[in-house]
Amino acid sequence: MSTTTKAYAAQTPTSSLAAWNFERREPGNHDVQFDILFCGVCHSDLHQIRNEWFPGIFPMVPGHEIVGRVTKVGSHVKKFKLGDLVGVGCMVDSCRVCDSCKEGIEQYCLNGNSGTYNSTEQDKVTPTYGGYSKLMVANEDFVLKISEKLNLAAVAPLLCAGITTYSPLRHWKVGKGHKVGVLGLGGLGHMAVKFAVSFGAEVTMLSTSPSKEADAKRLGAHHFLLTTEKENMKKFKNYFDFIIDTVSAPHDYNAYLSLLKISGTHICVGVPPTPLQIQGFSLLGGRKSISGSAIGGIAETQEMLDYCAEHNIVSDIELIDIKDINSAYERMLKGDVRYRFVIDIATL
Amino acid sequence: MSTTTKAYAAQTPTSSLAAWNFERREPGNHDVQFDILFCGVCHSDLHQIRNEWFPGIFPMVPGHEIVGRVTKVGSHVKKFKLGDLVGVGCMVDSCRVCDSCKEGIEQYCLNGNSGTYNSTEQDKVTPTYGGYSKLMVANEDFVLKISEKLNLAAVAPLLCAGITTYSPLRHWKVGKGHKVGVLGLGGLGHMAVKFAVSFGAEVTMLSTSPSKEADAKRLGAHHFLLTTEKENMKKFKNYFDFIIDTVSAPHDYNAYLSLLKISGTHICVGVPPTPLQIQGFSLLGGRKSISGSAIGGIAETQEMLDYCAEHNIVSDIELIDIKDINSAYERMLKGDVRYRFVIDIATL
Repeated sequence: MSTTTKAYAAQTPTSSLAAWNFERREPGNHDVQFDILFCGVCHSDLHQIRNEWFPGIFPMVPGHEIVGRVTKVGSHVKKFKLGDLVGVGCMVDSCRVCDSCKEGIEQYCLNGNSGTYNSTEQDKVTPTYGGYSKLMVANEDFVLKISEKLNLAAVAPLLCAGITTYSPLRHWKVGKGHKVGVLGLGGLGHMAVKFAVSFGAEVTMLSTSPSKEADAKRLGAHHFLLTTEKENMKKFKNYFDFIIDTVSAPHDYNAYLSLLKISGTHICVGVPPTPLQIQGFSLLGGRKSISGSAIGGIAETQEMLDYCAEHNIVSDIELIDIKDINSAYERMLKGDVRYRFVIDIATL
Repeated sequence: MSTTTKAYAAQTPTSSLAAWNFERREPGNHDVQFDILFCGVCHSDLHQIRNEWFPGIFPMVPGHEIVGRVTKVGSHVKKFKLGDLVGVGCMVDSCRVCDSCKEGIEQYCLNGNSGTYNSTEQDKVTPTYGGYSKLMVANEDFVLKISEKLNLAAVAPLLCAGITTYSPLRHWKVGKGHKVGVLGLGGLGHMAVKFAVSFGAEVTMLSTSPSKEADAKRLGAHHFLLTTEKENMKKFKNYFDFIIDTVSAPHDYNAYLSLLKISGTHICVGVPPTPLQIQGFSLLGGRKSISGSAIGGIAETQEMLDYCAEHNIVSDIELIDIKDINSAYERMLKGDVRYRFVIDIATL
């Protein structure tokens, strides 16, 4: 038993996205089924359909910033009922038994979690399909509760861009008294600014583009550092406790490490395709660290969504029709989006 | 007023070390003068006389693992008296006013500390000369008290190899319940093993050389991982909370990052001449960090020396005559020393 589900898919790594139907399973005892209302467009969608990270599973239905309303629940489901607003982020399952899963950091599941798309269920066979589709079915443990208080379309990107920046800020206990640099103002960067400001930090946007200054300030950044200006860079030497680096193109990490205070931490949430080139003295010279962080666990994602509802935080989005997804990808590649495309799934 | 002081110096980056006399200042009001008894031979001595890190100041008298007995004190000196055993490590002064100095981490002085040799006093003009010499004069704030309890020659390397490994283990609060890998069994590595074991951690020596296993175990290591064996490496995947990396030749950091637990930290105390090549996913895939640490502050160096006196920890050394320093360098380059050469300054 299954439900034929309308979607947009890439048939190969070189094809555009186009309409495609696939079968969603009937909800099992522990599953929640929901009508997808909105799905965010993440840069990693494009990386994955183009095989830029690893060979993908095709046809591929991208989308891991998914929100909708519950239409069916399995007989053992306890947390959700018909009509609830819900969300699914980057994972739909994990092994549940490894140290990471037991600790609630399923994003680091040692046996491999099930990505929402371009992955497999825990049987390691059944492919998963994402949110560029009409219908979602997922185990209730990987379904998030969404508040009715916020603009639902603007909530969708919280499921990836939101948690990816919230989680490291919480893990490294960023808040009052800290000076935080945010590198890159895009889908992740604009959320990093909002969260770091909300947590009480002094926030500086680091960017190569002067045109971003006004927007950075509007989002709450206290300072703007144009990184192409040498004098500017000198002023901020040994300045930051943390830099949140959202850039996924190669860049000069040593220049940014010099902006960190002694014992400061440079946190990468973007992944360039080529290795980071780090000078040993950039680290030893000031007991500095370069670290990475990937999305967040399910409990923390729920905490983040609740925090956003309480503090009225959402993403800045541009709502698009599904038919415009391919041109949206082109614009995203040029950085021409402020700051996240979200697909209105009603147009599918 | 000054004292003509016998020493061994390199006259140029390509010359061998040979006898040379220079003038030590008379002790000022806050200075301690002492007869040098022993001086350790650090790999960085060789890097510096050969200009491998940066253009050096010549003639150069190396040596920053210095111990001896006080022969004169300035009129305002409070901490030391004639006949005291004392030591000087890698620094002889710092700016005293920057945030790092105020915090007691003078090794990260933001205005540049005064290295014990191949550096200048805080006037930024007067060159400093190290411990391959008969006599030392230094400000009492940068002179350490040495216990009479331990073998003095074996204490000398604590001033650099000791504090360089003690400090990061303390900073990252390494101890009971932690699994620590020590990469490289040399001057730094053998001290890292001793300290990590003493702090209660489970310690594994990581080495490419099977011949090091017996010695690693003798030093206290609980396990030995031969890193050239793939099956061995698999067994230790996601195993360590910390890796202390003492290797200063280029190596594959990503392979070692895979041995860290989720949220683990790879701490570099060795500096390869070429940039570290780090895959982004090596960090993001497990919220891992790569960090660096350089020597330690003066207060922490004193704490380390006191800890060593209390716990009977010294370096494993080979005592040499000053006339053998050039052949000792050659042996050091081949790793043929267990684990630190120390010069008997009586032979000078």
